[in-house]
Amino acid sequence: MPQNDTGRSAFDRATAVTRTEGGGLRADLDPGWDVGNGVLNGGYLLAVVARAALADSPHPHPVALSASYLRATPGGPADLAVTAGPAGRTLAHSSVLLAGAAGPTLSVQVTTATLGSDPADYTVNPAPPLPAPDACVATRTAEGGPAVGLARQLDTRLDPATAGWVAGRPSDRRLLRAWIRLADGRDPDPLALLLFADALPPTAFAVGEPGWAPTVQLQVLVRALPARGWCLVESRSTEVTGGWSDEECRIWDSAGRLVAQARQLARVARQSRRPGRATSPVR
Amino acid sequence: MPQNDTGRSAFDRATAVTRTEGGGLRADLDPGWDVGNGVLNGGYLLAVVARAALADSPHPHPVALSASYLRATPGGPADLAVTAGPAGRTLAHSSVLLAGAAGPTLSVQVTTATLGSDPADYTVNPAPPLPAPDACVATRTAEGGPAVGLARQLDTRLDPATAGWVAGRPSDRRLLRAWIRLADGRDPDPLALLLFADALPPTAFAVGEPGWAPTVQLQVLVRALPARGWCLVESRSTEVTGGWSDEECRIWDSAGRLVAQARQLARVARQSRRPGRATSPVR
Repeated sequence: MPQNDTGRSAFDRATAVTRTEGGGLRADLDPGWDVGNGVLNGGYLLAVVARAALADSPHPHPVALSASYLRATPGGPADLAVTAGPAGRTLAHSSVLLAGAAGPTLSVQVTTATLGSDPADYTVNPAPPLPAPDACVATRTAEGGPAVGLARQLDTRLDPATAGWVAGRPSDRRLLRAWIRLADGRDPDPLALLLFADALPPTAFAVGEPGWAPTVQLQVLVRALPARGWCLVESRSTEVTGGWSDEECRIWDSAGRLVAQARQLARVARQSRRPGRATSPVR
Repeated sequence: MPQNDTGRSAFDRATAVTRTEGGGLRADLDPGWDVGNGVLNGGYLLAVVARAALADSPHPHPVALSASYLRATPGGPADLAVTAGPAGRTLAHSSVLLAGAAGPTLSVQVTTATLGSDPADYTVNPAPPLPAPDACVATRTAEGGPAVGLARQLDTRLDPATAGWVAGRPSDRRLLRAWIRLADGRDPDPLALLLFADALPPTAFAVGEPGWAPTVQLQVLVRALPARGWCLVESRSTEVTGGWSDEECRIWDSAGRLVAQARQLARVARQSRRPGRATSPVR
Protein backbone atom coordinates (compact mmCIF):
# COMPACT_ATOMS: atom_id res chain seq x y z
CA MET A 1 0.00 0.00 0.00
CA PRO A 2 2.02 2.97 -1.25
CA GLN A 3 0.29 5.47 1.01
CA ASN A 4 1.60 3.63 4.04
CA ASP A 5 5.12 3.07 2.75
CA THR A 6 7.23 4.32 5.62
CA GLY A 7 10.56 2.94 4.55
CA ARG A 8 11.72 5.02 1.66
CA SER A 9 12.48 8.51 2.75
CA ALA A 10 11.96 11.12 5.44
CA PHE A 11 9.09 12.54 3.36
CA ASP A 12 7.28 9.21 3.16
CA ARG A 13 7.76 8.55 6.87
CA ALA A 14 6.63 12.07 7.83
CA THR A 15 3.49 11.92 5.68
CA ALA A 16 2.42 8.36 6.46
CA VAL A 17 -1.16 7.70 7.48
CA THR A 18 -2.27 4.59 9.33
CA ARG A 19 -5.62 2.92 9.76
CA THR A 20 -6.86 2.90 13.34
CA GLU A 21 -8.70 -0.02 14.90
CA GLY A 22 -11.89 1.98 14.56
CA GLY A 23 -11.34 2.24 10.79
CA GLY A 24 -10.32 5.91 10.79
CA LEU A 25 -7.07 7.38 9.51
CA ARG A 26 -4.40 8.93 11.66
CA ALA A 27 -1.08 10.67 11.07
CA ASP A 28 1.73 11.51 13.41
CA LEU A 29 2.63 14.98 12.13
CA ASP A 30 6.37 15.52 12.21
CA PRO A 31 7.37 18.81 13.89
CA GLY A 32 10.49 18.79 11.71
CA TRP A 33 8.49 20.16 8.73
CA ASP A 34 7.72 23.53 10.26
CA VAL A 35 7.97 27.04 8.88
CA GLY A 36 8.78 28.61 12.23
CA ASN A 37 7.18 28.80 15.66
CA GLY A 38 6.23 25.12 15.49
CA VAL A 39 3.74 25.73 12.67
CA LEU A 40 3.78 23.03 10.00
CA ASN A 41 4.18 23.84 6.31
CA GLY A 42 0.97 23.92 4.27
CA GLY A 43 2.33 21.78 1.45
CA TYR A 44 3.53 19.12 3.86
CA LEU A 45 0.03 18.98 5.35
CA LEU A 46 -1.53 18.70 1.87
CA ALA A 47 0.60 15.63 1.19
CA VAL A 48 -0.65 14.02 4.41
CA VAL A 49 -4.23 14.85 3.46
CA ALA A 50 -3.73 13.43 -0.04
CA ARG A 51 -2.46 10.15 1.40
CA ALA A 52 -5.62 9.92 3.48
CA ALA A 53 -7.81 10.59 0.42
CA LEU A 54 -5.91 8.01 -1.64
CA ALA A 55 -6.32 5.39 1.08
CA ASP A 56 -10.06 5.50 0.44
CA SER A 57 -10.00 6.15 -3.33
CA PRO A 58 -10.14 3.77 -6.30
CA HIS A 59 -7.66 6.08 -8.06
CA PRO A 60 -3.91 6.34 -7.42
CA HIS A 61 -3.10 10.05 -7.83
CA PRO A 62 -4.18 13.39 -6.39
CA VAL A 63 -5.10 15.70 -9.30
CA ALA A 64 -6.78 18.62 -7.54
CA LEU A 65 -6.75 19.74 -3.92
CA SER A 66 -8.43 22.87 -2.57
CA ALA A 67 -7.61 23.61 1.03
CA SER A 68 -8.81 26.06 3.65
CA TYR A 69 -6.22 26.62 6.36
CA LEU A 70 -8.50 27.07 9.36
CA ARG A 71 -5.79 27.37 12.00
CA ALA A 72 -2.05 26.84 12.30
CA THR A 73 -1.24 23.12 12.61
CA PRO A 74 1.41 21.95 15.11
CA GLY A 75 3.18 18.60 15.12
CA GLY A 76 1.73 15.58 16.87
CA PRO A 77 -1.07 13.07 16.32
CA ALA A 78 -3.86 14.13 13.99
CA ASP A 79 -7.04 12.46 12.81
CA LEU A 80 -8.03 12.56 9.15
CA ALA A 81 -11.77 12.30 8.56
CA VAL A 82 -12.40 11.36 4.93
CA THR A 83 -15.90 11.87 3.52
CA ALA A 84 -16.15 10.04 0.23
CA GLY A 85 -18.00 11.75 -2.61
CA PRO A 86 -18.93 10.34 -5.99
CA ALA A 87 -16.34 7.98 -7.50
CA GLY A 88 -16.33 6.95 -11.14
CA ARG A 89 -14.08 5.46 -13.76
CA THR A 90 -12.36 8.79 -14.44
CA LEU A 91 -12.15 10.48 -11.06
CA ALA A 92 -13.29 10.42 -7.45
CA HIS A 93 -14.17 13.25 -5.05
CA SER A 94 -13.69 13.38 -1.31
CA SER A 95 -13.46 15.85 1.55
CA VAL A 96 -10.80 15.51 4.22
CA LEU A 97 -10.80 17.24 7.59
CA LEU A 98 -7.54 17.18 9.52
CA ALA A 99 -7.90 17.63 13.28
CA GLY A 100 -5.25 17.64 15.98
CA ALA A 101 -5.61 17.79 19.72
CA ALA A 102 -7.04 21.33 19.54
CA GLY A 103 -9.64 20.57 16.86
CA PRO A 104 -9.87 20.92 13.06
CA THR A 105 -7.10 22.92 11.42
CA LEU A 106 -7.37 22.06 7.71
CA SER A 107 -10.32 21.31 5.44
CA VAL A 108 -9.62 20.02 1.94
CA GLN A 109 -11.58 19.08 -1.19
CA VAL A 110 -9.71 16.32 -2.99
CA THR A 111 -10.09 14.95 -6.50
CA THR A 112 -8.19 11.77 -7.32
CA ALA A 113 -7.68 10.18 -10.73
CA THR A 114 -5.00 8.47 -12.79
CA LEU A 115 -2.28 10.74 -14.14
CA GLY A 116 -0.10 10.03 -17.14
CA SER A 117 3.12 11.36 -18.58
CA ASP A 118 2.19 11.72 -22.25
CA PRO A 119 3.17 15.02 -23.86
CA ALA A 120 0.67 17.86 -23.43
CA ASP A 121 -1.90 18.38 -26.19
CA TYR A 122 -1.62 22.14 -25.69
CA THR A 123 0.63 24.22 -23.51
CA VAL A 124 1.64 27.83 -23.08
CA ASN A 125 3.83 27.00 -20.09
CA PRO A 126 7.42 26.79 -21.33
CA ALA A 127 9.88 26.27 -18.48
CA PRO A 128 11.81 29.45 -17.70
CA PRO A 129 15.55 29.28 -18.35
CA LEU A 130 17.54 28.75 -15.14
CA PRO A 131 21.23 28.16 -14.48
CA ALA A 132 22.10 24.61 -13.40
CA PRO A 133 21.39 23.83 -9.72
CA ASP A 134 25.07 24.09 -8.80
CA ALA A 135 25.18 27.62 -10.23
CA CYS A 136 22.17 28.67 -8.14
CA VAL A 137 21.91 29.91 -4.55
CA ALA A 138 21.43 27.20 -1.91
CA THR A 139 18.94 28.66 0.58
CA ARG A 140 19.80 26.20 3.32
CA THR A 141 23.05 27.94 4.02
CA ALA A 142 22.12 31.42 2.83
CA GLU A 143 22.04 34.23 5.33
CA GLY A 144 18.53 35.57 5.52
CA GLY A 145 17.22 32.25 4.27
CA PRO A 146 14.51 30.42 6.14
CA ALA A 147 16.10 28.79 9.20
CA VAL A 148 13.17 26.47 9.68
CA GLY A 149 12.60 22.72 9.69
CA LEU A 150 11.21 22.72 6.16
CA ALA A 151 14.48 24.14 4.83
CA ARG A 152 16.38 21.12 6.14
CA GLN A 153 14.02 18.67 4.40
CA LEU A 154 14.48 20.26 1.00
CA ASP A 155 17.36 21.07 -1.27
CA THR A 156 16.39 24.44 -2.75
CA ARG A 157 18.57 26.32 -5.24
CA LEU A 158 17.36 29.82 -6.01
CA ASP A 159 17.82 31.33 -9.45
CA PRO A 160 20.44 34.04 -8.88
CA ALA A 161 18.15 36.39 -10.85
CA THR A 162 15.52 36.12 -8.08
CA ALA A 163 17.90 35.70 -5.13
CA GLY A 164 19.11 39.29 -4.65
CA TRP A 165 17.21 39.53 -1.36
CA VAL A 166 19.38 36.78 0.14
CA ALA A 167 22.35 39.17 -0.09
CA GLY A 168 20.40 42.26 0.95
CA ARG A 169 19.59 43.43 -2.58
CA PRO A 170 15.83 43.00 -2.90
CA SER A 171 14.05 43.20 -6.25
CA ASP A 172 10.94 45.17 -7.15
CA ARG A 173 9.34 41.95 -8.47
CA ARG A 174 7.53 39.50 -6.22
CA LEU A 175 8.99 36.53 -8.05
CA LEU A 176 11.03 33.51 -6.93
CA ARG A 177 12.38 30.69 -9.08
CA ALA A 178 14.28 27.69 -7.80
CA TRP A 179 15.34 24.13 -8.41
CA ILE A 180 13.93 21.92 -5.69
CA ARG A 181 14.16 18.32 -4.55
CA LEU A 182 13.84 16.38 -1.33
CA ALA A 183 17.06 16.60 0.66
CA ASP A 184 17.45 12.82 0.84
CA GLY A 185 17.27 12.49 -2.93
CA ARG A 186 13.82 10.88 -3.09
CA ASP A 187 12.44 11.41 -6.59
CA PRO A 188 9.35 13.57 -7.11
CA ASP A 189 5.87 12.13 -7.43
CA PRO A 190 2.44 13.78 -7.21
CA LEU A 191 2.64 13.83 -3.39
CA ALA A 192 6.00 15.61 -3.46
CA LEU A 193 4.53 18.13 -5.93
CA LEU A 194 1.93 19.05 -3.32
CA LEU A 195 4.80 19.80 -0.95
CA PHE A 196 6.75 21.78 -3.55
CA ALA A 197 3.65 23.89 -4.37
CA ASP A 198 4.01 25.67 -1.02
CA ALA A 199 7.72 25.20 -0.31
CA LEU A 200 9.36 28.44 -1.40
CA PRO A 201 9.51 31.42 0.98
CA PRO A 202 6.71 33.98 0.64
CA THR A 203 7.19 36.04 -2.52
CA ALA A 204 7.41 39.14 -0.30
CA PHE A 205 10.92 37.95 0.61
CA ALA A 206 11.97 38.82 -2.95
CA VAL A 207 11.12 42.48 -2.38
CA GLY A 208 12.81 42.58 1.02
CA GLU A 209 9.75 42.11 3.19
CA PRO A 210 10.33 38.98 5.25
CA GLY A 211 7.71 37.65 7.60
CA TRP A 212 5.18 34.90 7.85
CA ALA A 213 2.40 35.12 5.25
CA PRO A 214 -0.28 32.71 6.46
CA THR A 215 -2.09 30.82 3.70
CA VAL A 216 -5.87 31.23 3.77
CA GLN A 217 -6.83 29.03 0.81
CA LEU A 218 -4.63 27.03 -1.54
CA GLN A 219 -5.55 25.12 -4.69
CA VAL A 220 -3.05 22.73 -6.24
CA LEU A 221 -3.57 21.00 -9.59
CA VAL A 222 -1.26 18.11 -10.46
CA ARG A 223 -1.15 17.85 -14.23
CA ALA A 224 1.27 15.01 -15.01
CA LEU A 225 3.60 12.47 -13.42
CA PRO A 226 6.99 14.15 -12.94
CA ALA A 227 10.21 12.74 -14.38
CA ARG A 228 13.03 11.84 -11.98
CA GLY A 229 15.37 14.51 -10.68
CA TRP A 230 15.07 18.17 -9.86
CA CYS A 231 11.85 20.13 -10.23
CA LEU A 232 11.77 23.80 -11.17
CA VAL A 233 9.39 25.90 -9.08
CA GLU A 234 8.25 29.42 -9.89
CA SER A 235 6.24 31.42 -7.36
CA ARG A 236 5.00 34.93 -8.00
CA SER A 237 2.45 37.34 -6.66
CA THR A 238 0.37 39.21 -9.18
CA GLU A 239 -1.81 41.35 -6.93
CA VAL A 240 -1.35 42.64 -3.37
CA THR A 241 -4.19 44.69 -1.98
CA GLY A 242 -6.02 45.33 1.28
CA GLY A 243 -3.72 43.07 3.29
CA TRP A 244 -4.14 40.10 0.92
CA SER A 245 -1.70 38.63 -1.58
CA ASP A 246 -2.03 35.93 -4.19
CA GLU A 247 0.80 33.49 -4.86
CA GLU A 248 0.87 31.74 -8.21
CA CYS A 249 3.01 28.64 -8.46
CA ARG A 250 4.06 26.57 -11.43
CA ILE A 251 6.23 23.46 -11.26
CA TRP A 252 8.12 21.82 -14.13
CA ASP A 253 9.93 18.50 -13.98
CA SER A 254 13.51 17.81 -15.07
CA ALA A 255 12.28 17.29 -18.64
CA GLY A 256 10.85 20.81 -18.71
CA ARG A 257 7.26 19.67 -18.62
CA LEU A 258 4.64 21.49 -16.54
CA VAL A 259 3.55 19.06 -13.82
CA ALA A 260 1.66 21.23 -11.33
CA GLN A 261 -0.05 24.60 -10.91
CA ALA A 262 -1.15 26.23 -7.68
CA ARG A 263 -2.68 29.44 -6.44
CA GLN A 264 -3.05 30.60 -2.89
CA LEU A 265 -4.56 33.56 -1.15
CA ALA A 266 -2.46 34.64 1.81
CA ARG A 267 -2.53 37.37 4.37
CA VAL A 268 0.29 39.86 3.97
CA ALA A 269 2.97 39.45 6.65
CA ARG A 270 2.43 41.84 9.52
CA GLN A 271 5.79 43.57 9.30
CA SER A 272 5.14 44.45 5.65
CA ARG A 273 1.46 45.34 5.95
CA ARG A 274 1.56 49.09 5.75
CA PRO A 275 -1.72 50.43 4.38
CA GLY A 276 -1.39 52.75 1.44
CA ARG A 277 2.26 52.02 0.87
CA ALA A 278 3.07 50.79 -2.62
CA THR A 279 5.79 48.16 -2.24
CA SER A 280 6.72 48.46 -5.89
CA PRO A 281 5.84 50.65 -8.82
CA VAL A 282 2.40 49.47 -9.88
CA ARG A 283 2.85 48.17 -13.38
CA MET B 1 -30.46 41.40 4.79
CA PRO B 2 -28.71 41.71 1.44
CA GLN B 3 -28.38 37.97 0.91
CA ASN B 4 -32.15 37.65 0.91
CA ASP B 5 -32.88 40.72 -1.21
CA THR B 6 -35.21 39.34 -3.84
CA GLY B 7 -36.42 42.56 -5.28
CA ARG B 8 -33.61 44.01 -7.28
CA SER B 9 -32.86 41.85 -10.25
CA ALA B 10 -33.25 38.42 -11.79
CA PHE B 11 -29.82 37.50 -10.40
CA ASP B 12 -30.76 38.36 -6.84
CA ARG B 13 -34.06 36.54 -7.07
CA ALA B 14 -32.46 33.45 -8.64
CA THR B 15 -29.69 33.24 -6.02
CA ALA B 16 -31.80 34.01 -2.93
CA VAL B 17 -31.51 31.75 0.09
CA THR B 18 -34.14 31.56 2.79
CA ARG B 19 -34.06 30.34 6.37
CA THR B 20 -36.26 27.32 6.99
CA GLU B 21 -38.28 26.83 10.14
CA GLY B 22 -35.69 24.28 11.25
CA GLY B 23 -32.97 26.93 10.97
CA GLY B 24 -31.37 25.57 7.81
CA LEU B 25 -30.90 27.39 4.52
CA ARG B 26 -32.69 26.62 1.32
CA ALA B 27 -32.62 27.88 -2.25
CA ASP B 28 -35.00 27.42 -5.14
CA LEU B 29 -32.53 26.94 -7.96
CA ASP B 30 -33.75 28.63 -11.11
CA PRO B 31 -33.62 26.36 -14.19
CA GLY B 32 -33.23 29.50 -16.31
CA TRP B 33 -29.48 29.66 -15.47
CA ASP B 34 -28.52 26.46 -17.25
CA VAL B 35 -25.67 25.67 -19.63
CA GLY B 36 -27.66 23.08 -21.56
CA ASN B 37 -29.49 19.85 -20.81
CA GLY B 38 -30.96 21.36 -17.65
CA VAL B 39 -27.56 21.57 -15.94
CA LEU B 40 -27.04 24.77 -13.95
CA ASN B 41 -24.01 26.99 -14.46
CA GLY B 42 -21.19 26.55 -11.95
CA GLY B 43 -20.77 30.27 -11.30
CA TYR B 44 -24.47 30.72 -10.65
CA LEU B 45 -24.29 27.91 -8.08
CA LEU B 46 -21.24 29.50 -6.42
CA ALA B 47 -23.21 32.71 -5.92
CA VAL B 48 -26.00 30.76 -4.22
CA VAL B 49 -23.45 29.01 -2.00
CA ALA B 50 -21.79 32.33 -1.13
CA ARG B 51 -25.14 33.79 -0.04
CA ALA B 52 -25.59 30.84 2.30
CA ALA B 53 -22.10 31.31 3.76
CA LEU B 54 -22.68 35.04 4.22
CA ALA B 55 -25.97 34.41 6.01
CA ASP B 56 -23.98 32.76 8.80
CA SER B 57 -20.84 34.93 8.66
CA PRO B 58 -19.85 38.05 10.60
CA HIS B 59 -18.26 39.35 7.37
CA PRO B 60 -20.06 40.81 4.34
CA HIS B 61 -18.07 39.58 1.32
CA PRO B 62 -16.91 36.30 -0.21
CA VAL B 63 -13.14 36.53 -0.80
CA ALA B 64 -12.22 32.93 -1.61
CA LEU B 65 -14.33 29.97 -2.71
CA SER B 66 -13.00 26.55 -3.64
CA ALA B 67 -15.60 24.22 -5.07
CA SER B 68 -15.76 20.57 -6.00
CA TYR B 69 -18.49 19.88 -8.54
CA LEU B 70 -19.60 16.43 -7.41
CA ARG B 71 -22.45 16.01 -9.85
CA ALA B 72 -24.43 18.10 -12.32
CA THR B 73 -26.99 20.26 -10.50
CA PRO B 74 -30.51 20.68 -11.93
CA GLY B 75 -33.02 23.37 -11.04
CA GLY B 76 -35.39 23.01 -8.11
CA PRO B 77 -35.25 23.17 -4.31
CA ALA B 78 -31.86 22.65 -2.72
CA ASP B 79 -30.63 22.58 0.86
CA LEU B 80 -27.45 24.41 1.86
CA ALA B 81 -25.71 22.91 4.87
CA VAL B 82 -23.25 25.45 6.28
CA THR B 83 -20.56 24.22 8.68
CA ALA B 84 -18.99 27.22 10.36
CA GLY B 85 -15.24 27.21 10.86
CA PRO B 86 -13.10 29.67 12.79
CA ALA B 87 -14.26 33.30 12.55
CA GLY B 88 -12.13 36.25 13.54
CA ARG B 89 -11.86 39.96 13.06
CA THR B 90 -10.21 39.62 9.65
CA LEU B 91 -11.88 36.61 8.07
CA ALA B 92 -14.19 33.64 8.64
CA HIS B 93 -14.09 30.11 7.22
CA SER B 94 -17.01 27.83 6.45
CA SER B 95 -17.89 24.78 4.39
CA VAL B 96 -21.11 24.62 2.40
CA LEU B 97 -22.67 21.50 0.96
CA LEU B 98 -25.43 22.00 -1.62
CA ALA B 99 -27.86 19.10 -1.97
CA GLY B 100 -30.89 18.74 -4.19
CA ALA B 101 -33.47 16.00 -4.36
CA ALA B 102 -30.86 13.50 -5.61
CA GLY B 103 -28.27 14.28 -2.93
CA PRO B 104 -25.14 16.45 -2.66
CA THR B 105 -23.92 18.00 -5.90
CA LEU B 106 -21.51 20.75 -4.80
CA SER B 107 -19.07 21.04 -1.90
CA VAL B 108 -17.42 24.40 -1.27
CA GLN B 109 -14.84 25.90 1.10
CA VAL B 110 -15.71 29.54 1.68
CA THR B 111 -13.69 32.38 3.18
CA THR B 112 -15.52 35.60 3.94
CA ALA B 113 -14.04 38.95 4.91
CA THR B 114 -14.48 42.65 4.22
CA LEU B 115 -13.32 43.84 0.81
CA GLY B 116 -12.31 47.37 -0.09
CA SER B 117 -11.78 49.36 -3.23
CA ASP B 118 -8.47 51.09 -2.46
CA PRO B 119 -5.87 50.97 -5.21
CA ALA B 120 -3.68 47.87 -5.27
CA ASP B 121 -0.34 48.02 -3.44
CA TYR B 122 1.22 45.88 -6.17
CA THR B 123 -0.18 44.56 -9.43
CA VAL B 124 1.06 42.95 -12.60
CA ASN B 125 -2.47 42.58 -13.96
CA PRO B 126 -3.06 45.43 -16.40
CA ALA B 127 -6.42 45.16 -18.13
CA PRO B 128 -6.04 44.04 -21.75
CA PRO B 129 -7.10 46.58 -24.36
CA LEU B 130 -10.55 45.80 -25.77
CA PRO B 131 -12.79 47.66 -28.20
CA ALA B 132 -15.87 49.27 -26.61
CA PRO B 133 -18.75 46.87 -25.89
CA ASP B 134 -20.73 48.11 -28.90
CA ALA B 135 -17.80 47.28 -31.17
CA CYS B 136 -17.63 43.72 -29.82
CA VAL B 137 -19.54 40.56 -30.75
CA ALA B 138 -22.77 39.95 -28.82
CA THR B 139 -22.87 36.22 -28.14
CA ARG B 140 -26.58 36.17 -27.39
CA THR B 141 -27.42 36.50 -31.04
CA ALA B 142 -24.28 34.96 -32.50
CA GLU B 143 -24.55 31.81 -34.51
CA GLY B 144 -22.61 29.09 -32.75
CA GLY B 145 -23.02 30.96 -29.50
CA PRO B 146 -24.37 29.25 -26.44
CA ALA B 147 -28.13 28.90 -26.88
CA VAL B 148 -28.60 28.24 -23.20
CA GLY B 149 -30.40 29.90 -20.30
CA LEU B 150 -27.25 31.48 -18.96
CA ALA B 151 -26.76 33.37 -22.21
CA ARG B 152 -30.11 35.11 -21.75
CA GLN B 153 -29.22 36.28 -18.23
CA LEU B 154 -25.98 37.92 -19.32
CA ASP B 155 -24.99 40.56 -21.81
CA THR B 156 -21.69 39.27 -23.18
CA ARG B 157 -19.66 41.09 -25.82
CA LEU B 158 -16.72 39.12 -27.17
CA ASP B 159 -13.52 40.85 -28.19
CA PRO B 160 -13.50 40.46 -32.01
CA ALA B 161 -9.87 39.30 -31.67
CA THR B 162 -11.05 36.21 -29.77
CA ALA B 163 -14.40 35.75 -31.54
CA GLY B 164 -13.30 34.21 -34.83
CA TRP B 165 -14.87 30.89 -33.86
CA VAL B 166 -18.33 32.50 -33.82
CA ALA B 167 -18.03 33.02 -37.58
CA GLY B 168 -16.37 29.66 -38.26
CA ARG B 169 -12.77 30.95 -38.12
CA PRO B 170 -11.30 29.36 -35.00
CA SER B 171 -8.02 30.51 -33.52
CA ASP B 172 -5.07 28.40 -32.40
CA ARG B 173 -5.20 30.09 -28.97
CA ARG B 174 -7.49 28.90 -26.20
CA LEU B 175 -8.30 32.46 -25.17
CA LEU B 176 -11.56 34.39 -24.80
CA ARG B 177 -12.03 38.00 -23.75
CA ALA B 178 -15.34 39.75 -23.29
CA TRP B 179 -17.22 42.58 -21.69
CA ILE B 180 -19.88 41.17 -19.43
CA ARG B 181 -22.77 42.42 -17.31
CA LEU B 182 -26.08 41.14 -16.07
CA ALA B 183 -28.72 41.46 -18.80
CA ASP B 184 -31.06 43.52 -16.62
CA GLY B 185 -28.34 46.09 -15.94
CA ARG B 186 -27.74 45.18 -12.28
CA ASP B 187 -24.31 46.46 -11.29
CA PRO B 188 -21.56 44.01 -10.37
CA ASP B 189 -20.73 43.08 -6.78
CA PRO B 190 -18.67 40.22 -5.32
CA LEU B 191 -21.56 37.78 -5.85
CA ALA B 192 -21.87 38.71 -9.53
CA LEU B 193 -18.10 38.24 -9.89
CA LEU B 194 -18.54 34.62 -8.77
CA LEU B 195 -21.01 34.23 -11.62
CA PHE B 196 -18.77 35.97 -14.15
CA ALA B 197 -15.82 33.74 -13.18
CA ASP B 198 -17.49 30.79 -14.91
CA ALA B 199 -19.71 32.56 -17.42
CA LEU B 200 -17.78 32.48 -20.69
CA PRO B 201 -18.01 29.45 -22.98
CA PRO B 202 -15.28 26.81 -22.55
CA THR B 203 -11.99 28.08 -23.99
CA ALA B 204 -12.06 25.12 -26.38
CA PHE B 205 -14.75 27.04 -28.32
CA ALA B 206 -12.03 29.50 -29.35
CA VAL B 207 -10.14 26.75 -31.19
CA GLY B 208 -13.29 25.37 -32.82
CA GLU B 209 -13.95 22.52 -30.41
CA PRO B 210 -17.41 23.13 -28.96
CA GLY B 211 -18.89 20.87 -26.33
CA TRP B 212 -19.57 20.76 -22.65
CA ALA B 213 -16.42 20.82 -20.50
CA PRO B 214 -17.58 19.85 -17.00
CA THR B 215 -15.83 21.68 -14.18
CA VAL B 216 -14.20 19.37 -11.63
CA GLN B 217 -12.81 21.96 -9.20
CA LEU B 218 -12.99 25.75 -9.31
CA GLN B 219 -11.31 28.32 -7.08
CA VAL B 220 -12.42 31.96 -7.24
CA LEU B 221 -10.66 34.78 -5.41
CA VAL B 222 -12.47 38.12 -5.15
CA ARG B 223 -9.83 40.81 -4.73
CA ALA B 224 -11.74 44.09 -4.58
CA LEU B 225 -15.20 45.63 -4.79
CA PRO B 226 -15.97 46.28 -8.47
CA ALA B 227 -16.92 49.69 -9.82
CA ARG B 228 -20.29 50.11 -11.53
CA GLY B 229 -20.74 49.13 -15.15
CA TRP B 230 -19.25 46.50 -17.42
CA CYS B 231 -16.66 43.99 -16.29
CA LEU B 232 -13.96 42.65 -18.56
CA VAL B 233 -13.45 38.89 -18.37
CA GLU B 234 -10.49 36.97 -19.77
CA SER B 235 -10.51 33.19 -19.82
CA ARG B 236 -7.66 31.11 -21.13
CA SER B 237 -6.36 27.59 -20.94
CA THR B 238 -2.65 27.15 -20.41
CA GLU B 239 -2.32 23.37 -20.38
CA VAL B 240 -4.45 20.60 -21.90
CA THR B 241 -3.28 17.07 -21.26
CA GLY B 242 -4.65 13.59 -20.61
CA GLY B 243 -8.27 14.69 -21.01
CA TRP B 244 -7.94 17.57 -18.51
CA SER B 245 -7.84 21.32 -19.15
CA ASP B 246 -7.21 24.27 -16.88
CA GLU B 247 -9.14 27.50 -17.31
CA GLU B 248 -7.61 30.67 -15.93
CA CYS B 249 -9.95 33.61 -15.46
CA ARG B 250 -9.25 37.23 -14.60
CA ILE B 251 -11.90 39.90 -14.18
CA TRP B 252 -11.38 43.68 -14.28
CA ASP B 253 -13.99 46.28 -13.44
CA SER B 254 -14.95 49.29 -15.56
CA ALA B 255 -12.09 51.26 -13.98
CA GLY B 256 -9.57 48.69 -15.24
CA ARG B 257 -8.86 47.30 -11.81
CA LEU B 258 -8.40 43.56 -11.23
CA VAL B 259 -11.32 42.44 -9.07
CA ALA B 260 -11.28 38.64 -9.31
CA GLN B 261 -9.10 35.69 -10.30
CA ALA B 262 -10.20 32.09 -10.83
CA ARG B 263 -8.78 28.79 -11.92
CA GLN B 264 -10.65 25.63 -12.74
CA LEU B 265 -9.76 22.11 -13.70
CA ALA B 266 -12.22 20.74 -16.25
CA ARG B 267 -12.62 17.58 -18.23
CA VAL B 268 -12.09 18.07 -21.93
CA ALA B 269 -15.35 17.98 -23.89
CA ARG B 270 -15.99 14.55 -25.31
CA GLN B 271 -16.18 15.61 -28.93
CA SER B 272 -12.75 17.22 -28.71
CA ARG B 273 -11.03 14.59 -26.58
CA ARG B 274 -8.84 12.87 -29.13
CA PRO B 275 -5.80 11.32 -27.44
CA GLY B 276 -2.49 12.24 -28.97
CA ARG B 277 -3.88 15.00 -31.16
CA ALA B 278 -2.29 18.38 -30.63
CA THR B 279 -5.02 20.99 -31.02
CA SER B 280 -2.48 23.72 -31.50
CA PRO B 281 1.23 24.02 -32.01
CA VAL B 282 2.69 23.45 -28.56
CA ARG B 283 4.42 26.70 -27.69
